[in-house]
Amino acid sequence: MARIVQKFGGTSVADLDCIRNVAKRVKAEVDRGSDVAVIVSAMAGVTNQLVDYVSQASALHDTREYDVVVSSGEQVTAGLLALCLQELGVPARSWMGWQIPIHADDMHGKARITGIEPDRLVKKFGEGQVAVVAGFQGVSPHGRIATLGRGGSDTTAVALAAALGAERCDIFTDVDGVYTTDPRIVPKARKLDKITYEEMLEMASLGAKVLQTRSVELAMNMGVRVQVLSSFEDLPGTLVVDEDEIVEKQVVSGIAYSRDEAKITLVQVEDKPGVAAGIFGPLADANINVDMIVQNISPDGGATDLTFTVTRADLNRAVKLLQDRRDEIRYKDLIHDAGVVKVSVIGVGMRSHAGVALSMFTTLAEKGINIQVISTSEIKISVLIDEEYTELALRALHTAYGLDAD
Amino acid sequence: MARIVQKFGGTSVADLDCIRNVAKRVKAEVDRGSDVAVIVSAMAGVTNQLVDYVSQASALHDTREYDVVVSSGEQVTAGLLALCLQELGVPARSWMGWQIPIHADDMHGKARITGIEPDRLVKKFGEGQVAVVAGFQGVSPHGRIATLGRGGSDTTAVALAAALGAERCDIFTDVDGVYTTDPRIVPKARKLDKITYEEMLEMASLGAKVLQTRSVELAMNMGVRVQVLSSFEDLPGTLVVDEDEIVEKQVVSGIAYSRDEAKITLVQVEDKPGVAAGIFGPLADANINVDMIVQNISPDGGATDLTFTVTRADLNRAVKLLQDRRDEIRYKDLIHDAGVVKVSVIGVGMRSHAGVALSMFTTLAEKGINIQVISTSEIKISVLIDEEYTELALRALHTAYGLDAD
Repeated sequence: MARIVQKFGGTSVADLDCIRNVAKRVKAEVDRGSDVAVIVSAMAGVTNQLVDYVSQASALHDTREYDVVVSSGEQVTAGLLALCLQELGVPARSWMGWQIPIHADDMHGKARITGIEPDRLVKKFGEGQVAVVAGFQGVSPHGRIATLGRGGSDTTAVALAAALGAERCDIFTDVDGVYTTDPRIVPKARKLDKITYEEMLEMASLGAKVLQTRSVELAMNMGVRVQVLSSFEDLPGTLVVDEDEIVEKQVVSGIAYSRDEAKITLVQVEDKPGVAAGIFGPLADANINVDMIVQNISPDGGATDLTFTVTRADLNRAVKLLQDRRDEIRYKDLIHDAGVVKVSVIGVGMRSHAGVALSMFTTLAEKGINIQVISTSEIKISVLIDEEYTELALRALHTAYGLDAD
Repeated sequence: MARIVQKFGGTSVADLDCIRNVAKRVKAEVDRGSDVAVIVSAMAGVTNQLVDYVSQASALHDTREYDVVVSSGEQVTAGLLALCLQELGVPARSWMGWQIPIHADDMHGKARITGIEPDRLVKKFGEGQVAVVAGFQGVSPHGRIATLGRGGSDTTAVALAAALGAERCDIFTDVDGVYTTDPRIVPKARKLDKITYEEMLEMASLGAKVLQTRSVELAMNMGVRVQVLSSFEDLPGTLVVDEDEIVEKQVVSGIAYSRDEAKITLVQVEDKPGVAAGIFGPLADANINVDMIVQNISPDGGATDLTFTVTRADLNRAVKLLQDRRDEIRYKDLIHDAGVVKVSVIGVGMRSHAGVALSMFTTLAEKGINIQVISTSEIKISVLIDEEYTELALRALHTAYGLDAD
C-alpha cells in the first residue's frame, strides 16, 4: 500500500473547525487506499504564547525546559486530530516524538533528527490505523524532549517520509503552491507544477516562506518527493522534486525578493590586506550575518568604499559596532540605508544558458532602476535595489523571463 | 538528607507571578537542607480549556487521546517552574510521568499508579537538583500517557512521597489547612493542627474539598504524613496522620456538609423481598450512585415508603428512569426534592464515646430542624435536612460539640 506523509501547519489547525477540516483531508487520502502518517504543528498562536511564558519565566532560559514547555502545543493538536479522525470513523492514534521514537541530538531548541524507528508505527498501519505525529519534537539521548526549531514540523514530515519510504510528503499550508513570484505583487504570477530542490532552497531562503529551508535540504538529501498544497482547497499543488524529474527545464523558474535587507557602506576604507577581516570578524562574533558584499576597486591603490548588507533587525547593532571601532577600522564615513530590497531570479536552467544576468540588468535599466549590489550563485542572480522599485522590478522581470500567465 | 515532597495546585500556579512565588516556597525548603520533589498541576483554567477542546472534537472520546491532550497542562507548568527555580539559583529539572517513570494502568482518564521507579530522580538529588514533576500523569503498560483523573496531582504527590520514603508530603492549596467546619459559614471554625486519615477521608468525601479522596486513602495505606497548607501564607497547616500520632483525641473533630444531594421518595412500594434490588439495580446500571437510604417499616406488612439520595446532577436521570419503570417497580407516587443538604459530624473519638448521635439529634431538634434521613458509620453521623437550615445547623452543632474557637 502506498505510504503518504501529510503535514499541516499552525494556520491549518488554528481551531477545532480547522482540525475537523484537516481530518477530512486525511480521510480522503485514506479512502484512496494509502497508509497515512500526519504531522501536525501547534494551533496558530499557541507556540508564541508558550515562548512568551518561557521568556517571562527566565530571560536566559535552559533550552531543555524551553523544549518541555513549547513542545506541548503539538501534543495537544495531535490528540485532537486523532479524536476528529475517529469521529469520521477513521482509526487513528497520536504519537509523541518519544513514543515512535524520533531520536534527536541534544541541541535543545534547534535539535537535529538523528534517526527514526518507524517499526511500531508501521505495525499500526497494518491495522489500518492513521498515525498522527506531533511535529517539531524528538527525544534526546538523555530521554528528554528536544525541539527542532521553528518550522521544525516540516523537517519532522520529511524525515518521517524518508524513514517510511513514503511515496510523497504533502505539506499543507495556507498557500496553494509555489509561485513564479509573489502573486500579491504580480497578478500574472503562475503556480509551478514542479520545482527542483535547488530552486526551492533558493526560493525558501530568499523569503518565499513556504517551506523551512532545512526540510528542503533534507528532502533533497533523502530523495523525498515533497508537494506543497493548500489545506483549504482541494487542488494539486507544487511538487518539489529532483532535477531529473523535470523534463522541460525553465531557464528562470521564479523571482524572489526579500525586504529584510539593510545596506551599510563604509566610505574610504584603507585598501590593504586584512581590512575586510577587521570589519567582518567582529560582525560575525556578534552573530550578525552579512549577506551581499561589494568592494570597489580603488583606482590609486589607496582608499576604497565597501558596501554590504545585513538583516534589518541587525542594522542598529551592526552600525553601533562599526562606529565603536572606527579608530581601528579607519574609515571616513559610514552610510546606512534600510530602504532597500533584494530581488533574485532563480532557475536551474541558468547553468546552461548565458545571458540571464544581462537580461536582468537590461530590464532593470530600461525601467530606470539602479542596481546597488549584485551577487550570483550557480542558479541565482540577486540584486539590491531601492525598495520603492520592488513592484516595478518584479513585474518587469516576470515579463522579461516569459513567466507571465496567459 | 530529609526528603520532602511538595505539591502545588492549579490556583497556586495560576500565572507566572504565582509560579515565581511557588519557586520561592520551594527554595525555602531547599535552604532548610531538604531534598525536594515538587509536583505541579496545570495552571488554573488550562485543564478546563483542554477538556473543552476534547469535548468539541469528540463527544464520546477515546480516553487515550483525552489523556494526551489534557496532560499537556502539567507539562507546561513543570517546565516553567524548573525555569523559575533556576532563576533563583536552585538547580532544577522537570520530569514527565514517562521520564521518571511513574507506571500506571491503562484505565485512561482515571488510571491508577502501579509503581514508581525513583532511582533516576534520587540520583539527581545527589547532585543537589530539585525534581519538578508533572502531576496527574503516568505512563501506561503500552507506553502511552495515562492521567489519574481530576485532582490526580495529589495522588502523584502522595505516591511519590511513598516511593521516596519522604518525611512529609506538603499539599499547598488556597486554604491554609483543614478546619473544624466551613469558616465562611461558621466564623468560629478553628484550623486543626492534626487530623487522622480516617477523619480526613470523611471530610474529603463529604464536600470539604481540600484533598482528593484517593490520595488520602493512599497516604493512609502507605503511611505518608501529609500536610495541608497555604501556598500564599507562610504558616503551619494541618497534618494528616495516623491515629497513634494524635494523643488527645477529640470526640468530634469536624462538621462537614454537602449541598450536592437530592432526595427521592417512592411512596407505597410493595414491602417484599427483591423490591429494593428492582429499584437500585437499574440505578446502578445507569451509573447513578445512591448514598443514603431509609425505608420505613410498614405496619401491616403491605406497602412502605422508600427514601434515598442521589447527587443533584443525577436527579433528573434517576427520576426519569424510575418513572419509566413504574409498572415494574409498582409504587403509588414519586416525590423528589433537590432542596436538601447532608450534614455530618466526624470524629475517631466517637468509637469510644456514646451519646454523640443523641447530641446531634437534640441540638437539631432544639433549633426546630427536622431530620429527614440518617446514616451512620463508625466515625461519622450524617443527617439530611432542609437546605434552608444549613448555616443554622452547622453553627449549632459546632457549638454543641465544643469546637468553637475562643
